Amino acid sequence: MLSGIFAPIATPFEGDEISYPRMKDNLARWAGTGLAGVVVLGSNGEFALLDEDEKERLIGFVRENLPATKSVIAGTGCESTRATIRLSKKAHQLGADAVLVVTPSYYKGGMTDQALNEYYTAVAGESPCPVILYNMPRNTGVNMSPSLVASMSAQKNIAGIKDSSGNIVQISEIIARSRPGFAVFAGSGSFLLATLLMGGVGGTMAVANVIPDVCVKIASLFSEGKMDEARNLQMKILDLNAAVTSRWGVAGLKAALDMVGYFGGDPRPPLMPLRGQQRAELRDIVARTLQAVEDSAIDDSKGDRT
Amino acid sequence: MLSGIFAPIATPFEGDEISYPRMKDNLARWAGTGLAGVVVLGSNGEFALLDEDEKERLIGFVRENLPATKSVIAGTGCESTRATIRLSKKAHQLGADAVLVVTPSYYKGGMTDQALNEYYTAVAGESPCPVILYNMPRNTGVNMSPSLVASMSAQKNIAGIKDSSGNIVQISEIIARSRPGFAVFAGSGSFLLATLLMGGVGGTMAVANVIPDVCVKIASLFSEGKMDEARNLQMKILDLNAAVTSRWGVAGLKAALDMVGYFGGDPRPPLMPLRGQQRAELRDIVARTLQAVEDSAIDDSKGDRT
Amino acid sequence: MLSGIFAPIATPFEGDEISYPRMKDNLARWAGTGLAGVVVLGSNGEFALLDEDEKERLIGFVRENLPATKSVIAGTGCESTRATIRLSKKAHQLGADAVLVVTPSYYKGGMTDQALNEYYTAVAGESPCPVILYNMPRNTGVNMSPSLVASMSAQKNIAGIKDSSGNIVQISEIIARSRPGFAVFAGSGSFLLATLLMGGVGGTMAVANVIPDVCVKIASLFSEGKMDEARNLQMKILDLNAAVTSRWGVAGLKAALDMVGYFGGDPRPPLMPLRGQQRAELRDIVARTLQAVEDSAIDDSKGDRT
Amino acid sequence: MLSGIFAPIATPFEGDEISYPRMKDNLARWAGTGLAGVVVLGSNGEFALLDEDEKERLIGFVRENLPATKSVIAGTGCESTRATIRLSKKAHQLGADAVLVVTPSYYKGGMTDQALNEYYTAVAGESPCPVILYNMPRNTGVNMSPSLVASMSAQKNIAGIKDSSGNIVQISEIIARSRPGFAVFAGSGSFLLATLLMGGVGGTMAVANVIPDVCVKIASLFSEGKMDEARNLQMKILDLNAAVTSRWGVAGLKAALDMVGYFGGDPRPPLMPLRGQQRAELRDIVARTLQAVEDSAIDDSKGDRT
Repeated sequence: MLSGIFAPIATPFEGDEISYPRMKDNLARWAGTGLAGVVVLGSNGEFALLDEDEKERLIGFVRENLPATKSVIAGTGCESTRATIRLSKKAHQLGADAVLVVTPSYYKGGMTDQALNEYYTAVAGESPCPVILYNMPRNTGVNMSPSLVASMSAQKNIAGIKDSSGNIVQISEIIARSRPGFAVFAGSGSFLLATLLMGGVGGTMAVANVIPDVCVKIASLFSEGKMDEARNLQMKILDLNAAVTSRWGVAGLKAALDMVGYFGGDPRPPLMPLRGQQRAELRDIVARTLQAVEDSAIDDSKGDRT
Repeated sequence: MLSGIFAPIATPFEGDEISYPRMKDNLARWAGTGLAGVVVLGSNGEFALLDEDEKERLIGFVRENLPATKSVIAGTGCESTRATIRLSKKAHQLGADAVLVVTPSYYKGGMTDQALNEYYTAVAGESPCPVILYNMPRNTGVNMSPSLVASMSAQKNIAGIKDSSGNIVQISEIIARSRPGFAVFAGSGSFLLATLLMGGVGGTMAVANVIPDVCVKIASLFSEGKMDEARNLQMKILDLNAAVTSRWGVAGLKAALDMVGYFGGDPRPPLMPLRGQQRAELRDIVARTLQAVEDSAIDDSKGDRT
Repeated sequence: MLSGIFAPIATPFEGDEISYPRMKDNLARWAGTGLAGVVVLGSNGEFALLDEDEKERLIGFVRENLPATKSVIAGTGCESTRATIRLSKKAHQLGADAVLVVTPSYYKGGMTDQALNEYYTAVAGESPCPVILYNMPRNTGVNMSPSLVASMSAQKNIAGIKDSSGNIVQISEIIARSRPGFAVFAGSGSFLLATLLMGGVGGTMAVANVIPDVCVKIASLFSEGKMDEARNLQMKILDLNAAVTSRWGVAGLKAALDMVGYFGGDPRPPLMPLRGQQRAELRDIVARTLQAVEDSAIDDSKGDRT
Repeated sequence: MLSGIFAPIATPFEGDEISYPRMKDNLARWAGTGLAGVVVLGSNGEFALLDEDEKERLIGFVRENLPATKSVIAGTGCESTRATIRLSKKAHQLGADAVLVVTPSYYKGGMTDQALNEYYTAVAGESPCPVILYNMPRNTGVNMSPSLVASMSAQKNIAGIKDSSGNIVQISEIIARSRPGFAVFAGSGSFLLATLLMGGVGGTMAVANVIPDVCVKIASLFSEGKMDEARNLQMKILDLNAAVTSRWGVAGLKAALDMVGYFGGDPRPPLMPLRGQQRAELRDIVARTLQAVEDSAIDDSKGDRT
């Protein structure tokens, strides 16, 4: 079940509140793609900016508005162990198939291997559904080492990891040392193909919000052994991937969604929306990317026409 | 009002819950020291590990159990602008004299000068009580530049900054460029004297939980122009200060409190308590520090006898 | 010519001086492998610890003692532009096929894109043989961005890059944006396969000193489209690769060479040789690696028997 | 002998070569200030960009052209232990009073406390004149811990340290733990006063090239217990100090020298000279600084008229 391409979906706001109608429309469209499912309350979903009641309602809403054929993974990582457990249990009740648990990060100095091991062991022990580790050093300032991950992979309820470090050596070492069947996902679209090559099972990545079927195609070309085609397609999405992650973050992702027919809107403050010049530059990147992938005959490139 | 030595107080737990009786006892003792006041819900108060309802109750409890002569500053920084405003308003209702607002940090890449300026401007505009900026790069991965701070210092409701960077050049530049009267606090006890020398108005620092009157004495020696004595005392607290901050963090702070007659207890998971060997080492540091400051005839050194 | 697997060879010392007889023996053995050639005066060759006259003599010696079928690349990067040009000219006279030029690094703050562009343009303009850029952020604290590399790749005498960053996204972006034919080498053995997949032409990597034909085999399996076998072999060298690079550096590399029948010896001070416990651990890693690759029937695994 | 303010002097070039006449003129002028002496071959002297024969000639030239009342400290740190020893011996022969030895830095991973301890022990054991440790993490990526420095301070021939980290806590800890008499120098002008307050003996700092007597005045005001005046003067040099260090480095320093009547000229490539806009901004900073310190009646402010 836990493999393939997942979109860590954006959370649409209108004014200061979550827009459920916009979310519904977006979900309907993602439902028609080759995505294996979505992650709700990921970094791209601005989970850190949502109140606890918003988080719970959103998990339920996403599950209800997506076909059963699509998996729903809920981001439930909080700073305290008990809050993470509480939200993970709730997520399961609300229909999540698995929970994605980011490393606590405010007390970086205290996040030793031992503390992280105890944290995830406690969460996995209490969570009714599988736990996916979430390594996101760019946002958290904490990195889980391959040896820590491998050691935790022995626990039955720890199903896999989303590694957003972009460190292919670390990803290779995690795969080499973890138990067979431990699911390793690329945490960003720019190293999807490399992760698959080293034995990863898929990706959960911002750019899959915008061009889901291009991402799915990279994975299927890889599975079919068409390495040159897979590489060519991978290369074509690097700029767009950077634009919606390292370069402009959530603001870039939402602006790109607006450009391809989804609803993106503005992020919640203190995140700022893209300014005019940035938006023009992004529009150019989106257009070039869609043009470049067109001859691959992928539906994403027809986004504007829906 | 906003000057002198503040203790960013630890939050006592028994089992998984906050212990209000323990907090009351601790407050009674701090009330008898020369502290200007306390910070509740600071980093040392494990604010990041508390639920929202716990935070509110704690602010009120601390205010009620501390004499009016002692100021109460409440840590109200959250990741979203609206949550920070909501909690700041609540803190004021509950009697806080000022709010201490840490930089949002999960979306580091988005925390540009402009975003931070808009964030603090919005918070200061809505907060009924003065806002103190809180720069804590070791925990947040975000650093506010002197030019940003100086620019924001022009806003009437932004009263000062707690800078925990330990960068004395940055602290000097903040003081040199900010409006007269802008209150700059050392964010850790190890650079208290240097900060005072450069024009700071005090400190809000973990070690002031443990040896409040030694910290107060450093400041008063400085005010009296007794530089050599001030330096000697500053030097004597460096090891203990490191033990309760960079070295062992909140766990070290709480263990040290237990050793001098306050209640410390264990931190909330995922933070881990000190292990036996570390505890023995800390006990040695506490004993040496108390011994070293004894001839200064400061009451803190008699902590164990209370 | 510039493709395949290169060993950035260690420099053997006896006492405080370079041992040319030991170097000759090592070269004779590397000559019998599938290596495309060697890099003399790379980071693994302790170039930073050699005097200028030692550098010149060593380039000539290596060229003279290696068959013409093997390429010799000489590390000629110095801190000043004029010293780099001087050594690059000398290297060409002494028979080097290309020069590998690391970014200057002491004045990191000054190494802007513009300064690096002028530096490499000046060196490439004066060097009689092709220049290979050398990006080694772990040692230099300087990273060349993909856009800078792509822009410089347009210069005819800048033939390629050794990227030791291990950042597969950066490597992908360099390949995507540089002129066709620009040769990109993995700078460490742990990301050789991923680099080849993204379009790289080979690797120049410490571990190729120790198990050259295993490294060559990974590249040939990749070329034959045998992805699973290539991945399996790549996985088997991760631990040894880490041992001779990030973990124990040059000291680890030299100790490993001693264990497989080459001469390694001690590094030059201030680098320290491996201590007993580390050496025992390394011996175990070497043994496990040789055992693991044995069924691939590669001659490297018979190192001890030569 | 080793106390007070030292200028780590710039090395003047004309064309691609060192200009000894220009150096002689600059030295004559520095000789007329209150400087305790100069550092030749420091970071600001572009030591990393000089050939070995240039280094030796320069040490001798500086010693010969400066009155015996001014101390000459020579930067002799090289990457290899033996090259550092060789140059230190030569520096002594050429008349240097002490040698300043930066941490080796290319093999950062190998620069453990033990390796650094062995390095400095070897150098101090062979150097005929006192060794001053040089901690410059911004350029080297290596930081010497207070415990390492304190331990090495017990060696008789290790006379002190220039700490350019700007970390006042580290500087305090070094002073607190090192043997009495161990000379601690601020490595940059922006934390001179704070260093003196904590027990430092002076500073060796880029800005002392440009406004030597202002720097000397800060130290003398401190000695006289005039804290407010000392602080005021310290504050006034922060911008100029940043301009000639962190902001524009050696290029900024040399341009500033040109603006106050010394010869600065261009740095050696790959360092780039300041561009027009930067130069205009620097000119403004220099003018404002001279104006601000004028009422202190310090001769530096009359630099242009000499």
